[in-house]
Amino acid sequence: MKPINVGLIGIGTVGGGTWTVLKRNADEIARRAGRPIRITAVADKNVELAKQVTGGEARVTDDAFSLVNDPEIDIIVELIGGYGVAKDVVLQSIANGKHVVTANKALLAVHGTEIFSAAQANGVMVAFEAAVAGGIPVIKALREGLSANRIEWAAGIINGTTNFILSEMRDKGLSFDDVLKEAQRLGYAEADPTFDIEGVDAAHKATLIASIAFGIPVQFDKAYVEGITKLEASDIKYAEQLGYRIKLLGIAKRRENGIELRVHPTLIPAKRLIANVEGAMNAVLVKGDAVGATMYYGKGAGAEPTASAVIADLVDVTRLATADAAHRVPHLAFQPDAMSNLPILPMSEIETGYYLRLRVEDKPGVLADVTRILADQAISIDAMLQREPEEGEGETDIIILTHVCKESAADTAIARIEALSAQKGKVKRIRLEELQ
Amino acid sequence: MKPINVGLIGIGTVGGGTWTVLKRNADEIARRAGRPIRITAVADKNVELAKQVTGGEARVTDDAFSLVNDPEIDIIVELIGGYGVAKDVVLQSIANGKHVVTANKALLAVHGTEIFSAAQANGVMVAFEAAVAGGIPVIKALREGLSANRIEWAAGIINGTTNFILSEMRDKGLSFDDVLKEAQRLGYAEADPTFDIEGVDAAHKATLIASIAFGIPVQFDKAYVEGITKLEASDIKYAEQLGYRIKLLGIAKRRENGIELRVHPTLIPAKRLIANVEGAMNAVLVKGDAVGATMYYGKGAGAEPTASAVIADLVDVTRLATADAAHRVPHLAFQPDAMSNLPILPMSEIETGYYLRLRVEDKPGVLADVTRILADQAISIDAMLQREPEEGEGETDIIILTHVCKESAADTAIARIEALSAQKGKVKRIRLEELQ
Repeated sequence: MKPINVGLIGIGTVGGGTWTVLKRNADEIARRAGRPIRITAVADKNVELAKQVTGGEARVTDDAFSLVNDPEIDIIVELIGGYGVAKDVVLQSIANGKHVVTANKALLAVHGTEIFSAAQANGVMVAFEAAVAGGIPVIKALREGLSANRIEWAAGIINGTTNFILSEMRDKGLSFDDVLKEAQRLGYAEADPTFDIEGVDAAHKATLIASIAFGIPVQFDKAYVEGITKLEASDIKYAEQLGYRIKLLGIAKRRENGIELRVHPTLIPAKRLIANVEGAMNAVLVKGDAVGATMYYGKGAGAEPTASAVIADLVDVTRLATADAAHRVPHLAFQPDAMSNLPILPMSEIETGYYLRLRVEDKPGVLADVTRILADQAISIDAMLQREPEEGEGETDIIILTHVCKESAADTAIARIEALSAQKGKVKRIRLEELQ
Repeated sequence: MKPINVGLIGIGTVGGGTWTVLKRNADEIARRAGRPIRITAVADKNVELAKQVTGGEARVTDDAFSLVNDPEIDIIVELIGGYGVAKDVVLQSIANGKHVVTANKALLAVHGTEIFSAAQANGVMVAFEAAVAGGIPVIKALREGLSANRIEWAAGIINGTTNFILSEMRDKGLSFDDVLKEAQRLGYAEADPTFDIEGVDAAHKATLIASIAFGIPVQFDKAYVEGITKLEASDIKYAEQLGYRIKLLGIAKRRENGIELRVHPTLIPAKRLIANVEGAMNAVLVKGDAVGATMYYGKGAGAEPTASAVIADLVDVTRLATADAAHRVPHLAFQPDAMSNLPILPMSEIETGYYLRLRVEDKPGVLADVTRILADQAISIDAMLQREPEEGEGETDIIILTHVCKESAADTAIARIEALSAQKGKVKRIRLEELQ
């Protein structure tokens, strides 16, 4: 089927990631979308960079509007950022009847009402999953997945830079200034980190979340915004002693007479799952009246995580422009004629780590026998625990954690251990996954 | 606009929840979907129950097929469960050109290929968000939100009963049998808990996850299924000592030559977020090549959480049947002509808890002054921490956590505390949310 043609405007971090992922997963994405998605033209001020990234596989220009006005282009991806050219690009694309995909939270939080009205009037979509929480599909969850609910509130760790800084301040007992310098060195904070550390970036995202949760117009100017620059290490320590962690939260809460929309450092009970979201990770917790609390967790920034959201929007638009309504999303995600024939593997072929509990006579040489059996099967040991036998017990438990190996190797090793005279009964085997 | 007519078959726990939530949130849902969604007929063997729940607001019958064959009904919601009548109901509804929404994981994991082919051939949708992880929109996340990714693996706590049992075994050091009895008493486990504790229910869900993640046909018969009945308290304890927790995971993993599809008790590092999902909660962790790891957390069962997913599917179907393609999902979740005019509240009106750090002279009467000021503003104290002043310091920190109050009351109290001669400088104020 004829590819859908995309014009990519801005090939910096996220734009580069979008190019890379679309190319690497072209086949997988086409099998899902129903037709290929192809970036046919790229516009960037830095033409040399654009040429280098695209390697001659797309038309490159420094004129964004040559893409916006190109009748061959179906979708414009706007990754310039800010309120200037980006706004003109988005509005002109809409006026030209093109769908728009953007990661520009600042633009939408401030000019969303104008932009969405224009899109509505021109019969095009403005998709912006990448604008909130990077690769986490939280816009989709709120707008579609939770549509049965009266949303009561949403609270999110929606700025990775500040969460990294707060995590480091807590872990290492350092001051804000020291951690900020480290974050800049590691690339977790920008040279001018104002938008992040003063809470402005989080407030842009919270503004969008509030609108989607409650059906109110975007009103960034009404948001309360307080950053983390005045937090002291002592406050983090005192909070910890009282059973709380401090996170920069974006909060949107429904009250009877209005909506609370605010971003500020917030104490939250340490036992909440969201309190344990550390480093540059993001998470959004949403309370609906029917579903209760749900949480969405993942990387909120970075080239490929954000590209993941940009491309999900491209697939959404493509599916609508391609399939009949009833088959917009294939039942099993991939088009029925593009299913995979990868077989389900038999258990002997799977690979995992193992917890093995042995019950052995407490005598010399047993451990040597067991470790030799494991070595014979090329199974390496990750950790071991031997319980002290109680007085006169004569038997004890040995616990072995193995590195990843084939289940067939584990089967053989277990059978051989069970054949040892020192082993009493069966070996208890529980599989182990690092989930990294 | 003309309502979309739904026939509800099966008005047990989830069916009752669906009725309740659709009725309670009718306005909110119509504002999102673009038209009212109305259950016009209900079929259940227990006609009396159905009459009681619906209170005369829908036609009630014990004949499911009178709904399936009713030309006035647009969508059939199948909540019978199992492979028998449910299968006939689903296939006949499809043949009659009706869309189907179902929570029936067993039916789809076993007969999905036949059902999805029929739906494809008849131009209707079979939506099944409620079949996996209850109210958590994880099908939508996998099928749409992560469509840019080559999925590497998914691992989920997708059975609440077993997670409740494992959490209790760990917390209380009890045996499987003892906790199972408690779970049955509390309603977390059914009288015949076999499907849950033997891992069958989780395997149905893992089968669907694997299909959607990798685009393979549903193949429940090839899944490896091991439950939690043989887990001993000692294994949970040893795992803990080694830094791991044991969870019943459904795992779908892509390997070069095939797919691993397995359900079994699994050790996972205690520091992973998913290891801290306790009680009857569910969570699914998905690893994509672009986005990295994302996690989806919430209630995986229960009347209203599952109804939340059923109704989200109804909204999905309704939006497709209602709007032009470009406006299937409104930009801000609600139809542009159905936005709310709830204002954003000024900060003085918000309600939250507070962490207050005072720096005071270490002398008698200070605490009495402070607590009286708080009491005057009707602010009640949740916890307090006073640091021992160091030798000769003469000043100390007092930390106060307050219950929820109005920000204006906190402002007044803080101003009055700062006016005390014993208070040195500003009071440090950080807001506090319980997020419950």
